Amino acid sequence: MTISFSAIEEAAERIHPYIHRTPVFTNASFNERVGAQVFFKCENFQKVGAFKFRGACNAIFSLTDEEARHGVCTHSSGNHAQAIALAAKLRGIPAYIVMPHSAPQVKKDAVAGYGGRITFCEATQAARESSLDRIRLETGATVVHPYNHTKVIAGQGTATLELLAEVSDLDVVLAPIGGGGLISGTALAAHGIKKGIRVIGGEPEMADDAFRSLQTGEIVPSVNPKSIADGLLSSLGSLTFPIIQQHVEQIVTVSEAGIIEAMRFIWERAKLLIEPSAAVAPGVLWEKKIDLRGLKVGVILSGGNVDLKQLPWND
Amino acid sequence: MTISFSAIEEAAERIHPYIHRTPVFTNASFNERVGAQVFFKCENFQKVGAFKFRGACNAIFSLTDEEARHGVCTHSSGNHAQAIALAAKLRGIPAYIVMPHSAPQVKKDAVAGYGGRITFCEATQAARESSLDRIRLETGATVVHPYNHTKVIAGQGTATLELLAEVSDLDVVLAPIGGGGLISGTALAAHGIKKGIRVIGGEPEMADDAFRSLQTGEIVPSVNPKSIADGLLSSLGSLTFPIIQQHVEQIVTVSEAGIIEAMRFIWERAKLLIEPSAAVAPGVLWEKKIDLRGLKVGVILSGGNVDLKQLPWND
Repeated sequence: MTISFSAIEEAAERIHPYIHRTPVFTNASFNERVGAQVFFKCENFQKVGAFKFRGACNAIFSLTDEEARHGVCTHSSGNHAQAIALAAKLRGIPAYIVMPHSAPQVKKDAVAGYGGRITFCEATQAARESSLDRIRLETGATVVHPYNHTKVIAGQGTATLELLAEVSDLDVVLAPIGGGGLISGTALAAHGIKKGIRVIGGEPEMADDAFRSLQTGEIVPSVNPKSIADGLLSSLGSLTFPIIQQHVEQIVTVSEAGIIEAMRFIWERAKLLIEPSAAVAPGVLWEKKIDLRGLKVGVILSGGNVDLKQLPWND
Repeated sequence: MTISFSAIEEAAERIHPYIHRTPVFTNASFNERVGAQVFFKCENFQKVGAFKFRGACNAIFSLTDEEARHGVCTHSSGNHAQAIALAAKLRGIPAYIVMPHSAPQVKKDAVAGYGGRITFCEATQAARESSLDRIRLETGATVVHPYNHTKVIAGQGTATLELLAEVSDLDVVLAPIGGGGLISGTALAAHGIKKGIRVIGGEPEMADDAFRSLQTGEIVPSVNPKSIADGLLSSLGSLTFPIIQQHVEQIVTVSEAGIIEAMRFIWERAKLLIEPSAAVAPGVLWEKKIDLRGLKVGVILSGGNVDLKQLPWND
């Protein structure tokens, strides 16, 4: 199943009334430190604090009225859960969210605050999937997968449409990779606008399944990854992997120290409150494993949902 | 000595090539919490991370070439020091900064990083002033006071020119009060544009000298204040007090708990990294001691220079 550039343009139009057009920031100190001209697309300022709201909105507002009537469901303990809950609220339909008991209270509160109906389960993949199946059968709700979903991917691409509308002469776009929804949308949007633009993914060294998938030519599952970038621990999907193979020039891994250093620099110098997962793409520039000196680089800062009591530089 | 509205307009033109035009943010959760429609003018994104850069630029770029040749000097351990250092660097002249030995290393590094020439002294007002005097006599440098200075006050007012250019129908503008430079510039700019707009100051309960000065009709010195809002501990000046008396409707004090709660909410929900002093003006709305329900309120978020290792919600 391919996703056309016009699917992204349609997504932009569809979600426009609901999303924030997020600002693009520059920071002289960061540019000096990394030797490139960097344009941060600040999805930390997106509703629910992450780009995930774009894809969730596009999926939910694409449903027919008949489908929508039964609501939507998903399993997630992260930003996708909040995004689905708020988008469903805006459409006026129920959102059934399966979350592990062990999810942080702040995330449970956030989902409940947006009106999501939470079902708790054990913290295993099997328990999450069986709970979701049960809810789907009971309610007739439509499952919205966090990334392996054409409407979700198209929605995530709209951030890059906005970025390139504002800064048209970028040489490179950098985005983080978890399940691949954001980088897939980013790459399709970027190449739809400008064939020659380079799209590069950033991935935690400690959760480098996408890097290894590109190397081996088949999806390498993410097994028990442990990274501070907790939004980037998923395996690639059947939809995202081929898009990445075709459109992403390379994936660069970033060390845990590099993620934390880049995050702290961006907090201290740019005053942008980003989550660890959002520091992985700028971390590619920070660690300088590849040479991007002198280039104009767009960087998707994916989100800003952080537990302020658990900052990585606290001892 | 009065400051005309046109002095603020001239300041805006003078400093335009050097400053950031900072964005205005809104946040639905904050609005809901306080019951008003709030427009945050984000001076935390200003160069050096604070509005202070506006006043410093206006003062330094107003000097004649002959004056400028000898450089500028000031004593400060805070944002003003960094602002003077960077503005002087941009004009290509020396900046002599007197700082107490006891200033945090991160602030010493920041001033030095902008090319400021630091003289260390004991941490008393007398030591600071005698060191400054000596430097002034030795170098012929011009002293730029952090707030009791017409060009500094006019420069600080430019933030409100920008805010009202973007949101013209504000009912109220809120700004924090330390020495009074920001609120004076804010009030002169606001009333220059729109006679009836209400200007309200926020001050820490634990450093309420301006509140008491307004009550008694004379400057009450700030003696040994202890507030987390460490940018708001100065006494009012001979220039700022009469402007405040004439233009500021009232000063509302904010508790330490209110400052910290407002700061945390703005970090968590708006993803805006602000310093404690910048949380005092929103703290006025947060604590609801006065009724601003249903109004359109501009709030100057004064800066974002925080020690990330010493956040007030860490235990």
